[in-house]
Amino acid sequence: MPIATKGAVKTLSSLDIERLGSPVVLSNTYHLMLRPGVEVIRNAGGLHRFMGWNGAILTDSGGYQVFSLADRRTVTEDGVLFASPIDGSKHILTPELSIEIQRALGSDIVMCFDEVVALPSDRETVASAVDRTTRWAVRCKETFEKTRSGSINPGALLFGIIQGGTDDELRRRSAEGLLKIGFDGYAIGGLSVGEPFEDALITLDALVPSLPTDKPRYFMGGAQPHQIVEYVKRGIDMFDCVLPTRNARHGHLYRFVHDDLSQSDFYEVVNVTNAKWKGSTEKIGTTGRTGRQDGQGHDPVVPYVLSSGRPDFNEELSRFSMGYLHHLFDTEEMLGYRLATVVNVSFYLELFRRLRG
Amino acid sequence: MPIATKGAVKTLSSLDIERLGSPVVLSNTYHLMLRPGVEVIRNAGGLHRFMGWNGAILTDSGGYQVFSLADRRTVTEDGVLFASPIDGSKHILTPELSIEIQRALGSDIVMCFDEVVALPSDRETVASAVDRTTRWAVRCKETFEKTRSGSINPGALLFGIIQGGTDDELRRRSAEGLLKIGFDGYAIGGLSVGEPFEDALITLDALVPSLPTDKPRYFMGGAQPHQIVEYVKRGIDMFDCVLPTRNARHGHLYRFVHDDLSQSDFYEVVNVTNAKWKGSTEKIGTTGRTGRQDGQGHDPVVPYVLSSGRPDFNEELSRFSMGYLHHLFDTEEMLGYRLATVVNVSFYLELFRRLRG
Repeated sequence: MPIATKGAVKTLSSLDIERLGSPVVLSNTYHLMLRPGVEVIRNAGGLHRFMGWNGAILTDSGGYQVFSLADRRTVTEDGVLFASPIDGSKHILTPELSIEIQRALGSDIVMCFDEVVALPSDRETVASAVDRTTRWAVRCKETFEKTRSGSINPGALLFGIIQGGTDDELRRRSAEGLLKIGFDGYAIGGLSVGEPFEDALITLDALVPSLPTDKPRYFMGGAQPHQIVEYVKRGIDMFDCVLPTRNARHGHLYRFVHDDLSQSDFYEVVNVTNAKWKGSTEKIGTTGRTGRQDGQGHDPVVPYVLSSGRPDFNEELSRFSMGYLHHLFDTEEMLGYRLATVVNVSFYLELFRRLRG
Repeated sequence: MPIATKGAVKTLSSLDIERLGSPVVLSNTYHLMLRPGVEVIRNAGGLHRFMGWNGAILTDSGGYQVFSLADRRTVTEDGVLFASPIDGSKHILTPELSIEIQRALGSDIVMCFDEVVALPSDRETVASAVDRTTRWAVRCKETFEKTRSGSINPGALLFGIIQGGTDDELRRRSAEGLLKIGFDGYAIGGLSVGEPFEDALITLDALVPSLPTDKPRYFMGGAQPHQIVEYVKRGIDMFDCVLPTRNARHGHLYRFVHDDLSQSDFYEVVNVTNAKWKGSTEKIGTTGRTGRQDGQGHDPVVPYVLSSGRPDFNEELSRFSMGYLHHLFDTEEMLGYRLATVVNVSFYLELFRRLRG
């Protein structure tokens, strides 16, 4: 899922995302409640209409952002009181309010409001957050059911969020608690927060087999392409990831190197601001090198064609060269950030198409 | 003509410009020779291929920029020696070199290299610039003819530039000199540089009747919509204008108010960053108010539909609201600058369609 934190995937319009072929974007309750405010979006007829997006929207509950971004927060059993970093104004988020806001936004996939803790934390802190997240999940489910009728999107789904850090027993306890309540999908929160990649894999190895096979499993947070391959192997279905869009704005482009996704070197990240790209006539939509020499001792560039997405967007990828993109970054033209974003989001979407086979 | 100073119309891709339906863009010899350099564009196969643009390109000769932007310039009969404001490196532009560069860029409409003077200047200075511009125009024409064979765009046109400030006699002298040499079109330079609008009109009234009716007349430089109407009345066919793109980046949007272009209030400029647009559900592609009350005492919003351009771009205009655009500017999302640019370039293109009738 590309990330539309504030109602727009950075540099792209909703029409662009449709052209790229992404079925869903993620947006953030926390950011939208502060700007433009829930009432503005409610009056617009919901977030889909506000941002002109015909696909699906998953909304964060605000739990993660309240813990990582807000000023002066106070956590009680009721919820979280916090100050806006924009203007210092006081706000509150409770499980009930988070669900009501997500209903007002018209989200297709509503997330439970959870308590997030930083890692590493002592076991007691993590255990306390797990148990509170489960108690809050009960309140989220109740509010979700109560607000179904009258909602602009009564067919929405509700996902629970499994916490527990890298402690297998706490993860199991969290999962069992949520399974008893029953959700439409299960998210794994509190990973990809700075812990070693191996620890995340071990956690998933222990946790995922206990999840139902007929419900989506959503890994919350960013992951590099080779990490995504490993997570998918372990049964993850959904990701949100800020890396393709954020890296694009620094000129870092993802490109396939070869077709064997079981090798972690199947992709490369090139920096288009590097002087070596000045004057390059290589197309931005090509995938980089095969990594294997052909008969003449060359390492050929392998083109790829997007297998989905609206065909007019393939033109966006095939028309421009790396040399042009280098020039756009050199002269700080906004178009450069946009084309780089198109390249990276295309790469991630193509990766998922390949993983689905 | 939208302006692609450095090989990109600010915030838009060449594909966007095609979708908007503009047949031609303007680009700048001066900016491109400094970055990325002529050799990069020559190796890319010309500017059209470099920027992925299938329409026509008019290139400035560099005359205006050398006089207005370059550091430490020295003008001789041969040409202009100047230092790059980017890195201080020394460069020279002569009539011959300017034409050769424009040929290498593959420009469709090549402009003569002219001497520009600031207004107001004393009559002697203006007269001297007129005469030098005529002598340089001879050299430009010679070089243009000599470089036709072997050019990547042998069908290109060459335009002469009439100087002379607001002095009718000097303007006539300039025009006569250029007409004797013979060009494919005639540009009027050195207006729209801070002189009163009335003075520009008086100058055009005196000058334009002396120009041939079967060659295009190009007014160089920016103009507000009501000024363009007056210039077109006086026989001008072509404009370049930075206003729609520059104003867009400040949130200033052009909108039609009514259909009577003979009234100078046929348009308005609204500032989408203004708090009054917060939460507005009005579509960005609508044209504003009629300025006349209907039967119910309301002042209705009149929608307009782009009569040309690729239909998928009308979607870009009809899908997003002023409230969404306000939010994008408020949160400094790059998409805001791009959508505002789409609105303003659409407005100017629509204005020209209406003027052609």
